[in-house]
Amino acid sequence: MGIVIRDALAVLPGGKGPETGRHTIYIAGDLIAGIDEKPEGFSEDEVISGKDRLVIPGLINAHTHTYMSMMRNCADDLSFMDWLFGRVSPIEDQLTSEDAYWGSLLSQIEMIRSGTTTFNDMQMHVHQTTRAVRESGMRAVICRGLVGDACDRSDRRLQEALEEMNDGKDCDRLTFLLGPHAPYTCGPAYLRMVADVAKEKGLGIHIHLSESVTEIENMRRDHDCTPIEYAYRAGVFDVPAIAAHCVQLEGNDISILAQNGVSVVTNPASNMKLGNGFAPVQELLGAGVNVCLGTDGAASNNAQNLFREMGHLALIHKGTHRTPQCVGAPEVFEAATIAGARALRLHTGSIEVGKKADLAILRLDTASMMPNNNPVAALCYSADGSETDTVIIDGRIVMQGRELKTIDEERVFFEIRQMCGRLGL
Amino acid sequence: MGIVIRDALAVLPGGKGPETGRHTIYIAGDLIAGIDEKPEGFSEDEVISGKDRLVIPGLINAHTHTYMSMMRNCADDLSFMDWLFGRVSPIEDQLTSEDAYWGSLLSQIEMIRSGTTTFNDMQMHVHQTTRAVRESGMRAVICRGLVGDACDRSDRRLQEALEEMNDGKDCDRLTFLLGPHAPYTCGPAYLRMVADVAKEKGLGIHIHLSESVTEIENMRRDHDCTPIEYAYRAGVFDVPAIAAHCVQLEGNDISILAQNGVSVVTNPASNMKLGNGFAPVQELLGAGVNVCLGTDGAASNNAQNLFREMGHLALIHKGTHRTPQCVGAPEVFEAATIAGARALRLHTGSIEVGKKADLAILRLDTASMMPNNNPVAALCYSADGSETDTVIIDGRIVMQGRELKTIDEERVFFEIRQMCGRLGL
Repeated sequence: MGIVIRDALAVLPGGKGPETGRHTIYIAGDLIAGIDEKPEGFSEDEVISGKDRLVIPGLINAHTHTYMSMMRNCADDLSFMDWLFGRVSPIEDQLTSEDAYWGSLLSQIEMIRSGTTTFNDMQMHVHQTTRAVRESGMRAVICRGLVGDACDRSDRRLQEALEEMNDGKDCDRLTFLLGPHAPYTCGPAYLRMVADVAKEKGLGIHIHLSESVTEIENMRRDHDCTPIEYAYRAGVFDVPAIAAHCVQLEGNDISILAQNGVSVVTNPASNMKLGNGFAPVQELLGAGVNVCLGTDGAASNNAQNLFREMGHLALIHKGTHRTPQCVGAPEVFEAATIAGARALRLHTGSIEVGKKADLAILRLDTASMMPNNNPVAALCYSADGSETDTVIIDGRIVMQGRELKTIDEERVFFEIRQMCGRLGL
Repeated sequence: MGIVIRDALAVLPGGKGPETGRHTIYIAGDLIAGIDEKPEGFSEDEVISGKDRLVIPGLINAHTHTYMSMMRNCADDLSFMDWLFGRVSPIEDQLTSEDAYWGSLLSQIEMIRSGTTTFNDMQMHVHQTTRAVRESGMRAVICRGLVGDACDRSDRRLQEALEEMNDGKDCDRLTFLLGPHAPYTCGPAYLRMVADVAKEKGLGIHIHLSESVTEIENMRRDHDCTPIEYAYRAGVFDVPAIAAHCVQLEGNDISILAQNGVSVVTNPASNMKLGNGFAPVQELLGAGVNVCLGTDGAASNNAQNLFREMGHLALIHKGTHRTPQCVGAPEVFEAATIAGARALRLHTGSIEVGKKADLAILRLDTASMMPNNNPVAALCYSADGSETDTVIIDGRIVMQGRELKTIDEERVFFEIRQMCGRLGL
């Protein structure tokens, strides 16, 4: 199957950040096979006109919990620990695996419709995100959230995490990480054990770090260190690690992250909504840290639309630093694309020959994108995500002209409504 | 002409803020003629099904410069004074009246498509926003931006402002204010003179106040007071006044605003983007100030979509105050609706019998709005604006099923592209 996107404005990697120009893009199988040069023997099975269209690498949501979408708008205006332990956890306790499956599909609809092609998911109901991803056609990196105290390799959650990895054996859109939830839910022995297993099996780690002030205070009280130091000492950073949040950084935290090549996922909406504040993104970028962008779960965002996050990321640090030169549109664009690919060790996130064909095609003939003179700025400051017209993942068209090709949206909405009735949401 | 919206979820004013319930809304002429009770002799000329729909009062963009939309994304990452005097003003100098007309229409397309029905416009090219509004069907409050030093009633701009008011004589969707631009562009004698004219003619005033740190510093240096005190002393607050921005408030500023019944328009994206910071919205609300919401012009936002602003407003103050209970969704909803109506002295901004029929009908069968259990939260935290399906202004359907009924979108895009080519944008 060959797809050609003919003569479109496209954002490609340039010497000094993203560069926009007119290009024709050839897709063969799951790969970008040519840019402006037709690959030998290429068969033009599907031709997409580039008129009034902008092609960008599919966005990468580097931290979320897709199953949580049914909890959207049901846990607002609560402090972090009340939100997590008072509201979210009790609902989570009632969720069935089937609920988690439909919840993940709902998040995936929202993501595809707003140009996201890959997500990094921490979940509780194994086999459900994988099941939803097989159907939706999205690319996902998955981990089962792990919590515990003792060094116990027979731990149920760890066993589930390892077993789930079989789900990806025949689907190259699925890869896996180990997901120790956070320093405040994983004791030192448990965290060390998980890090050891990751090392042995060549797996990366996905963890929440330094999200709330309470987390920092408790960590100081109980272990006399920061959560970053705690994770570092437990060996978490000996493997490729992705740390979500990193809002409350102190002392040597940024150097530890930088020196250990830890990728940081910033989740601006979630961090603001829960009253956790603003991550020091400008400082992290300055230290050379790979900063990616995430929505977090819908219970704390309450959307799964990375365009909202790009808008927040491009604006809030200009506000907190009181300087308009802080965290510019090119950096935001990279945080939402190539930085995520780097963190997740995926061959995607930019439009280059040989990379996975994960692309979002946006309309330029909308008021929000008009004039079309600075598309990267428009993506961050003007677009709302609904400009996304067509989405290609792994060389397959999953949405065209805003029509979803892989998910029965009405069925998902029906199931979500039923579920919310049952759960009293 | 009678329009009925049958059995829809709708957000009405309740005792303690917005309340959502199922209602049938009857529109006769330009007014909401009945809620759940069919007015006598009502003719059901147009029936809109409320299935999977949410009806809200049309949003009110309480501070913008609609003509500036062609400058979107062309003046990013500049300090406030460089942005205004180095980039925006030189482009403004090249704009023709015709450019301003098309620019305003482009902004109005974006606003209608994201549920805004009324805007408060400060402009430079008289008769152009009025001309565009006559065609688009929007409701607008308009002022010509005034700058000057001397007490001179023959001032060209002031004369233009007063002459333009004739444009509204036969169109009740048009009303007018006097628009002294800002304390740093209006000398004390000029500002006093404009305030006197406003008083004499029973006009309100629309002004920029306390936007940037430089403005505050210069005001302290030159006049030993804050911009709020400067405006107060000049008599600006002796008439109904709308103050845009109010980011840098000090000393007695908030009490002065509260005691004088000044409405404040917060413009979160613009204030962040220009590095001006965050307005003390929680404190203003606490002091009983009427806080409304605006986008500001597209040169500093860079969008005209109030859903983005609702998202920012609901999140940033939770971030700066590090508390999730700060500026909640109900307050944000009111800032984007009834507070704007109050500030602009318009009989709109809420769904009540006898109010102007300015309504936005949103789809509930979208991933972002699902589940539908807390629509006011969903509007602030989840929606992107593209859920807006149908818009009614002054009892007239201006968009239905996302099809614009009053503006030729393609023609506007064509003119904007031509203009940007000519202006080198």
